[in-house]
Amino acid sequence: MKATVLYGPRDVRFEDREEPRIEQPSDAIIRIAATCVCGSDLWPFRGIQAIAQPTPMGHEYCGIVEEVGSAVQGVKAGQFVVGSFCIADNTCPNCQAGYQSGCVNRAFMSGAQAPRLRVPFADGMLVATPDLPPADLLPSLLATSDVLGTGWFAATAAQVRPGSTVVVVGDGAVGLMGVLSAHQMGAERIIAMSRHATRQKLAEEFGATDIVTERGDEGVARIKEMTGGIGADSVLECVGTKEAMMQAIQSTRPGGFIGYVGVPHGVALDLPSVFFALVHLHGGPAPVRRFLPDLMKLVWAGRIQPGKVFDLTLPLDQVAEGYRAMDERRAIKTLLRP
Amino acid sequence: MKATVLYGPRDVRFEDREEPRIEQPSDAIIRIAATCVCGSDLWPFRGIQAIAQPTPMGHEYCGIVEEVGSAVQGVKAGQFVVGSFCIADNTCPNCQAGYQSGCVNRAFMSGAQAPRLRVPFADGMLVATPDLPPADLLPSLLATSDVLGTGWFAATAAQVRPGSTVVVVGDGAVGLMGVLSAHQMGAERIIAMSRHATRQKLAEEFGATDIVTERGDEGVARIKEMTGGIGADSVLECVGTKEAMMQAIQSTRPGGFIGYVGVPHGVALDLPSVFFALVHLHGGPAPVRRFLPDLMKLVWAGRIQPGKVFDLTLPLDQVAEGYRAMDERRAIKTLLRP
Repeated sequence: MKATVLYGPRDVRFEDREEPRIEQPSDAIIRIAATCVCGSDLWPFRGIQAIAQPTPMGHEYCGIVEEVGSAVQGVKAGQFVVGSFCIADNTCPNCQAGYQSGCVNRAFMSGAQAPRLRVPFADGMLVATPDLPPADLLPSLLATSDVLGTGWFAATAAQVRPGSTVVVVGDGAVGLMGVLSAHQMGAERIIAMSRHATRQKLAEEFGATDIVTERGDEGVARIKEMTGGIGADSVLECVGTKEAMMQAIQSTRPGGFIGYVGVPHGVALDLPSVFFALVHLHGGPAPVRRFLPDLMKLVWAGRIQPGKVFDLTLPLDQVAEGYRAMDERRAIKTLLRP
Repeated sequence: MKATVLYGPRDVRFEDREEPRIEQPSDAIIRIAATCVCGSDLWPFRGIQAIAQPTPMGHEYCGIVEEVGSAVQGVKAGQFVVGSFCIADNTCPNCQAGYQSGCVNRAFMSGAQAPRLRVPFADGMLVATPDLPPADLLPSLLATSDVLGTGWFAATAAQVRPGSTVVVVGDGAVGLMGVLSAHQMGAERIIAMSRHATRQKLAEEFGATDIVTERGDEGVARIKEMTGGIGADSVLECVGTKEAMMQAIQSTRPGGFIGYVGVPHGVALDLPSVFFALVHLHGGPAPVRRFLPDLMKLVWAGRIQPGKVFDLTLPLDQVAEGYRAMDERRAIKTLLRP
């Protein structure tokens, strides 16, 4: 089969790769119905995160089970399934505590930007839909695999409640999913920080009540002004830079909550600033598996349309253009169809 | 009156100072029954935290109200009171949310190592006992002013619950109060990290079930070994150094909680380590006022004896020796009697 491999900065190739096959009795092979490019794929694409060797790319996926290993009992060939970007057995104490992304067998999926994919720990990883989904549900089902689950975790970690005032730092796909999640959780006011017209529009469609275009100290001042000088109850940090994190900390009220899901790269946090701000901080790689059944049900019932975050759809063999479009911010998120 | 003033590193003087007087209608003047030296006083004493000018010291206090300003209604002359180390009006939105240490009028008390003290926002700050306390309750009542309230906040921030497995990093007075607090909150297992015999003994008296003497990576390995390889539910970081914080992070299970109350001095936290550890982080200057009424009731009823943390009692005019004894770790905490 042909699949996506990153060779180095901006060098994405769609080339021959070995077909995946069952390696462990707990594996499943799925035929990918839709996959996509993640914001975190841009780190190695841009050369900010070095890669040691040519790397198969992609960790967001949904599709039809083709084959399962001898130990798999929870899913079977022919079922449509979604799985998490994070490999977990879903049985260890950390998984049982709802932190599948802290599984004792944690690893990260790769190779999903391909026609077929091997999924380890299939019983723990994969959640099936009741039937084969109609084509128009595919983008939203795909979104539950990572980007929605990650935005949902940000809102969960930030303790969004009915009536909350919420700030979302970052207008990338994860930030937009954070807006949708906060809206679902009943937030009264959702302030999206964005200076891009198309993203502002989507944020409003997902439930943002206010848009703030200022950044840094000016952004913080604007949030303080909008919250009686106190700060927001919940802030979702969906970028991963030091600037975004400091903005989040300073926008949160004392005793308020920050959910952070932007993968930090070499960020050294000034602990005294966090200390005196009296905020709660929680985040990390999202335990998507915890939320997956519920999120898939919401999508299945048509109650949420996270798939709207995909504003570019390409055939899989044009994956390199999918990366470029996101890198140049011509696209929010690229969906790929094998 | 004579009172305590720090002039520079290791230069504590007990010298003539102006008597405090009512400056604002919301002030109270109290006659100090007992005060003490705080671990945080050692930072400027050691010269690690610079002081710009001779500084009146002391922020932990209890005593009898002598005089109140015209606006004060909640306390009156003759009452025995305890107040927090943190100045707060107890009416602003942050105070109402239980974060008095994030009050919009936040400032920190000073000048309590003296015979008399001015307390601003007396109505918000001071909590009276039902009657004048017997002498043997003084140390424990004094402890509620900061050191117990801070340990209690660490345990609260670390979400200690009945049945929790708790690690306490730091065997100073605050760490020991963290042990007491976790015990009161019903923790099943309380692991105190300490290598000092007298502190180990006190930790056990306060409820520690296990003592770990290893530090750093070895300490982390020991905790992992004791917790099925997973880490503790709750970790109290009661030191304020980078080493202690990293030890706390690595000792916490994914999804677990760190309460940190050691005042960090120039600590830059490696955010990726926190991110991938999936821990909850909360702390800061303790909102003692939130806990003060309940803690004073526990002391009054004889249910807790936090005053045992004072292992040295000196007349106030020997305050300099009180600092030296703590600096040289000859004393855990020094109580001073005017």
